[in-house]
Amino acid sequence: MGSVAGPRGEIHSAAMPEPIPIIGGTGALGWGLALRLARVGQPVVIGSRSSERAGEAVARLREAAPDAEAEGLVNTDAARRGPVVFLTVPFRAQSENLNNLHQALEPGQILVDCTVPTAAAIGGKATRSLGVWQGSAAQQAQEMVPDGVTVVAALHTVSAPMLGDPDEDLDEDVLICGDRKADKARVARIVGLVPGLRAVNAGALEMARIVEQLTPLVISINARYKTHAGIRIAGLPDGDPWE
Amino acid sequence: MGSVAGPRGEIHSAAMPEPIPIIGGTGALGWGLALRLARVGQPVVIGSRSSERAGEAVARLREAAPDAEAEGLVNTDAARRGPVVFLTVPFRAQSENLNNLHQALEPGQILVDCTVPTAAAIGGKATRSLGVWQGSAAQQAQEMVPDGVTVVAALHTVSAPMLGDPDEDLDEDVLICGDRKADKARVARIVGLVPGLRAVNAGALEMARIVEQLTPLVISINARYKTHAGIRIAGLPDGDPWE
Repeated sequence: MGSVAGPRGEIHSAAMPEPIPIIGGTGALGWGLALRLARVGQPVVIGSRSSERAGEAVARLREAAPDAEAEGLVNTDAARRGPVVFLTVPFRAQSENLNNLHQALEPGQILVDCTVPTAAAIGGKATRSLGVWQGSAAQQAQEMVPDGVTVVAALHTVSAPMLGDPDEDLDEDVLICGDRKADKARVARIVGLVPGLRAVNAGALEMARIVEQLTPLVISINARYKTHAGIRIAGLPDGDPWE
Repeated sequence: MGSVAGPRGEIHSAAMPEPIPIIGGTGALGWGLALRLARVGQPVVIGSRSSERAGEAVARLREAAPDAEAEGLVNTDAARRGPVVFLTVPFRAQSENLNNLHQALEPGQILVDCTVPTAAAIGGKATRSLGVWQGSAAQQAQEMVPDGVTVVAALHTVSAPMLGDPDEDLDEDVLICGDRKADKARVARIVGLVPGLRAVNAGALEMARIVEQLTPLVISINARYKTHAGIRIAGLPDGDPWE
């Protein structure tokens, strides 16, 4: 997968031949990600609990991106379609989804966990977070995936409505946490396919304890500024840190 | 205290006649803050446990900013010199300092807590944080200050070496947490005195639980990129949010 560095050091990648499965791709975040990827020629697979709703999401995708290479499947079938699987379900559905995916995921696959443990999962405020026993939703995911599947955490702070609206220009960073640099780099290339997103290496998977907290922070800022804020890291050197 | 909005929405304030006491101002963060404020004409008071070391820090300040209006005092005397007091000590010294300041601080003053509970306080990694019973170092400070003193949390993610080197251009945000908007606005005006810093309203004081975690995150990023990274919030509207 090739790449070039853009004017502010962001990586523009070339699309991969393998499709990118998005579990929970009918939700706002997953669908927005599918849309942005489809618009740059990246094949995607939208996963849903129901194949009917997956198909409807693909139809909506084709309205916004007529050339989209997209397929709609139930989650377990979707997860088998590509090496890097995004999990974009709400936190309250994370465990159930990971249980269901246990038979579908295979060693060597990467699961990109995008879930955020806000208190909204239990009817509380989205500006407050839940303590997850393992430290973070991503670490919980790592405990639940089959052996040989590695979890990378990403995409917590990108606004779903922004992502799903092709008229909105993105200009922000995606903080990526994981224990293997090569796996983070693969995810970074995918993130870098989306114009306006720059992937930043935030450290080991345990740093997801902090990065997942950025979502409640951004929601708090949004409430005060009536906006869809994002995170940027200032002061990074130019060049491709993923090489 | 007047202000104008700069080209990217940041606030440029006019210096206040009252000096700004900086408790722990001989440390890297406090001294850097004193330097940046002194260079824009803001009177500062450097506080230290020893009046001798406070005096030495002022002498160093005058070397870098010959016109600095600066005074060096022991912390308790420094804290009495202005309405907005910055606390820039390491977390392991926070409680001791707040105990010592208890007799000096008076109702109506604002204490700006800049401490970060990283595990470095107990000999651990600075990329990991300690759980503070009250939720955050800032909330611990709020519990310890005299009645009528309000705590605002700020300045966690600005690199001390960057702040202390006048040749370095800053271009980042300072996330401000507090329970009273007027108090946050006063602190924002002071932050806005420093060229290249923009104050962002991150929400209530309890959001310091998250904002304090940004320091270990930035340290993790620094280790990977060999830089002094900072935080920026993307997507904020223009104008002065503190009016």
